[in-house]
Amino acid sequence: MNVVERLGAFRARMEKERIAAVIVPTADAHASEYLADHFKTRQWLCGFTGSAGTLVVGRAEAALFTDGRYFIQAERQLAGSGVTLMRMGTAGTPSVEAYVSGLCAAGETVGVDFSVISAQYAQELEAELAGGGIALRDTGDWFAGLWTDRPPMPQAKAFVLEEAYAGRSVESKLAQIRAAMREAGARVHVSNVLDEIAWTLNVRGGDVLNTPVVMSYLMIGEADATWFVDAGKVDETVASALAAAGVTLRGYDEIDAALAAIEPGTPVMIDKRRLTARLCAAMAQATAVQHENPAFRIKAIKNDVELANLRAAHIKDGLAVTRLMYWLKQNVGKLPMTEISVSDYLLKLRREQTHFISPSFDTICAYRANAAMMHYKATPESDAAVEASDLLLIDSGAQYLEGTTDITRTFALGEVQQEQKMHFTAVLCSMLNLANAKFLYGCTGIGLDILARGPIWDMGIDYRCGTGHGVGYLLSVHEGPNSFRWYKSATRNEDTVLEAGMVTTDEPGVYIEGSHGIRTENELVCHKLEENEYGQFMGFEVITCAPIDLDAVIPEQMTARQRGWLNDYHVFVRETLLPLLEAQEEKDWLVHATRAI
Amino acid sequence: MNVVERLGAFRARMEKERIAAVIVPTADAHASEYLADHFKTRQWLCGFTGSAGTLVVGRAEAALFTDGRYFIQAERQLAGSGVTLMRMGTAGTPSVEAYVSGLCAAGETVGVDFSVISAQYAQELEAELAGGGIALRDTGDWFAGLWTDRPPMPQAKAFVLEEAYAGRSVESKLAQIRAAMREAGARVHVSNVLDEIAWTLNVRGGDVLNTPVVMSYLMIGEADATWFVDAGKVDETVASALAAAGVTLRGYDEIDAALAAIEPGTPVMIDKRRLTARLCAAMAQATAVQHENPAFRIKAIKNDVELANLRAAHIKDGLAVTRLMYWLKQNVGKLPMTEISVSDYLLKLRREQTHFISPSFDTICAYRANAAMMHYKATPESDAAVEASDLLLIDSGAQYLEGTTDITRTFALGEVQQEQKMHFTAVLCSMLNLANAKFLYGCTGIGLDILARGPIWDMGIDYRCGTGHGVGYLLSVHEGPNSFRWYKSATRNEDTVLEAGMVTTDEPGVYIEGSHGIRTENELVCHKLEENEYGQFMGFEVITCAPIDLDAVIPEQMTARQRGWLNDYHVFVRETLLPLLEAQEEKDWLVHATRAI
Repeated sequence: MNVVERLGAFRARMEKERIAAVIVPTADAHASEYLADHFKTRQWLCGFTGSAGTLVVGRAEAALFTDGRYFIQAERQLAGSGVTLMRMGTAGTPSVEAYVSGLCAAGETVGVDFSVISAQYAQELEAELAGGGIALRDTGDWFAGLWTDRPPMPQAKAFVLEEAYAGRSVESKLAQIRAAMREAGARVHVSNVLDEIAWTLNVRGGDVLNTPVVMSYLMIGEADATWFVDAGKVDETVASALAAAGVTLRGYDEIDAALAAIEPGTPVMIDKRRLTARLCAAMAQATAVQHENPAFRIKAIKNDVELANLRAAHIKDGLAVTRLMYWLKQNVGKLPMTEISVSDYLLKLRREQTHFISPSFDTICAYRANAAMMHYKATPESDAAVEASDLLLIDSGAQYLEGTTDITRTFALGEVQQEQKMHFTAVLCSMLNLANAKFLYGCTGIGLDILARGPIWDMGIDYRCGTGHGVGYLLSVHEGPNSFRWYKSATRNEDTVLEAGMVTTDEPGVYIEGSHGIRTENELVCHKLEENEYGQFMGFEVITCAPIDLDAVIPEQMTARQRGWLNDYHVFVRETLLPLLEAQEEKDWLVHATRAI
Repeated sequence: MNVVERLGAFRARMEKERIAAVIVPTADAHASEYLADHFKTRQWLCGFTGSAGTLVVGRAEAALFTDGRYFIQAERQLAGSGVTLMRMGTAGTPSVEAYVSGLCAAGETVGVDFSVISAQYAQELEAELAGGGIALRDTGDWFAGLWTDRPPMPQAKAFVLEEAYAGRSVESKLAQIRAAMREAGARVHVSNVLDEIAWTLNVRGGDVLNTPVVMSYLMIGEADATWFVDAGKVDETVASALAAAGVTLRGYDEIDAALAAIEPGTPVMIDKRRLTARLCAAMAQATAVQHENPAFRIKAIKNDVELANLRAAHIKDGLAVTRLMYWLKQNVGKLPMTEISVSDYLLKLRREQTHFISPSFDTICAYRANAAMMHYKATPESDAAVEASDLLLIDSGAQYLEGTTDITRTFALGEVQQEQKMHFTAVLCSMLNLANAKFLYGCTGIGLDILARGPIWDMGIDYRCGTGHGVGYLLSVHEGPNSFRWYKSATRNEDTVLEAGMVTTDEPGVYIEGSHGIRTENELVCHKLEENEYGQFMGFEVITCAPIDLDAVIPEQMTARQRGWLNDYHVFVRETLLPLLEAQEEKDWLVHATRAI
């Protein structure tokens, strides 16, 4: 079936069910950022492969809503499908809700699968449609019948993350969550969020590409806890570890029945912004207590064991990136290489590290103008030959038992234009300014962001994204609530106070369309510094460990303080990595690459 | 009557009225920051003269709640009064509301004058007391009978601020407020806020020391507007100017009757956080529409005429400060001088300027360790002799027809210790960093504050106040909603987006108890810079015009960029003021004082 045929079959179902329009979001049952293939229904139905977008299918027309990252790609991939591209964030583009309303007359019905939208969104959508006399109906999952070669639900094995890696027992985590439940007056807590569940239970898996989580649900009572997960994923080791922590196992599909069996009126703590409308409806007899899932904020503050492990992970990861840098510098212009082959070589170097599990996201390896696309992923069609000039941006990361990494380096491969060096140096100053901030406890990401953004804004340029995001521990590479952003949004948590133990990326950049892209990214651990009469001072430890390419730096553009920070960082990199290198020429190169400027 | 007798008489009234405890706030009927003497009832009753504090009088005990600025002064002034000092913000100090509850048994009554508390505070207080079965009663003003030599209500004449100074007609302001009323669904708007009323009506007066406002109320209808003001303050010129703008005059005391006469159910826009509980109760038959007073945000964005005038005001004001600086540098150690005599001399220099009206606040002239007290005001007892060494901090400002100024300079009077120079230079870098910020439209004071605070925090020091506040136009020297602060408070507006035309002070400092205090303050006008694909860039224009004392600067502690900013600023000061100086030695001195470093 091609896309037109798929949409035809979908519309036949709509007609049979008397539904005027259906919304197909990019979402799974777990409010995940990255989807297992099984959930990529929007992609299957319209052919657009981007990571973000909402498809609306009406009787005679259909539209895909996506953001600026994907306009070009979506236009190409939607060609001939009959699906209109809706450019979100540009003037004149309606909201999804307004568009779907416009497709219906009063008295008609809009459908959406309540298994993959949040209870809150369902509520808001229903209210908006009701304004036009339009009903909202839960369609359930239509793709089971339509999508014949649909990938099955992922079936990766779960494994126990030992306390040597997790740093805390499941019992202590459950106790902390139960304390939050008591405080909120709730007797039960239900979560569908995969990284929070994995963190709570000290388990990991492989159900989502590059994010080692297990498709499951967790229900925590005052003295009991139940993990809803396919039995086939859980071996004896996992089962007995959880049993020892007082966690009972039930099937993934048993969650609805378990929710329906909650005693009527029981106060249940849920986050309607995450829990799906289906599960919320399944526990309609209970009393919902709206509350952010406690694990969300608790897990963002890494414990000392996690932090010690993360340092080790970053040394391994930095070693791989440093070896790649050496290889690039030695071989560019001599060996044939492309964006994809360089990515593959980096993956090979990471695989040589102990406890490597997977990348933590799709590597962005972007040469010359490709790097101006912030979320570029090389495809066989776009794969650029990497030559002995200009800049190559590589944003990559890995999952180790010792944690998750995320690092960006931009390399000068021979001659680099002066403007690009100027931009590279500004980005470097930005990154250093933020990494070396000293601030009183109580500061938020909004309060610090300008330290990084200032040097870029001074040039009349902006990077159209946050300066940094939280990072999970052997979990999602993007994790809340901590971040560095300059403006307040409705759904993010930019006003989160930076707490000791939080890990946040520091990744300013410059992106000049059609020309070049530069990003330098280190990860920062927030720490307490001195406490005095003025309060508790805070600062950052940089845990990313790989050289920053001095070949693209203009030292005179930096202040003495910034040069000092850079030189100190390079001493750390050199002293850490030098003992781990074997070949003398590699050692000599590292000494040179980390020289004081 | 001494304080003990006053409290005795007050308690007799309490007993007669069967009230168990009374709250006496520091407040007037207009939510003012600075009070006319008539309203200083709390000061009269307990003897404490500080600008902030709440007195609670019970049958057997009484307590004054004040903040850290006033602990020492309050302790001294309350001695022998039987009034306990409650140190707000220190551990173990109860809230005013908890304390007053503790003085009462269930069924008893707390009293407060609803004429001087906001409707919102009355509501909150009533709810909190109700929890303990305690009633809240409006006592009205008891001081009329008790305080026999009470200053009368101020009776200063009002005057018209011509459009050449105000920049906009009353009609256009009323039209803009009416548009906000329509948008909020209100047909009437009532305000008690004096600076907002003065701004709206293009009138000024002299009812509050250093703040040229007129005690009055304003009621705006869809086509009519009424100014409630004592007839004796309004001459023919003012009356006819207002009549031409469609504004009717009524007596100050007629506001209650006018509110009671509003047709029942009429939607009236009020800000319960500002409007007094008495006035809110007077219009109980109307439908209150809670809304920030529109004038609050509109007047913060100065129009082009106001900005042009402000530049002129700052040149006059800077000239006075510069002449003072010259006089200090020439005469310190030769002529006798004290904090008060220096203040007086500065006032004399300001009085020589055209259109000078008054200071804009009590001058802070603080020598050596006195300057470590951020809100120090020299008294005859504290008045320090000013000698030929160390630092003298002068924070002062004035009201001119061309606007309100606020400037702080710290002067080196001979030998200054190296640590103090280091602190001085850090404060200077802080001030310059913020003044020279370039940022995208959408930034708030919270987002920029660290530019100023960073260099101070880097030393492990903090100044325990905001970095800057909005400034009125021939109105209050402290004005919202714009400010530079690093943390979000409940009542301030730190998340206000900085708009072109806003005027905000930039006044970081270092205050070392028992040693020295340093503050350097310039005023900044926010402007649009270039708009490009990244958005609208914004920046600041410095309008304060007086040298920064290079004798206390360590040039090597500054970056080349910071030195460049300072030198550019001094070029502006020199080119602006040099033509205004007459004596050649003064000119020569200015050239030297503004030399490039």
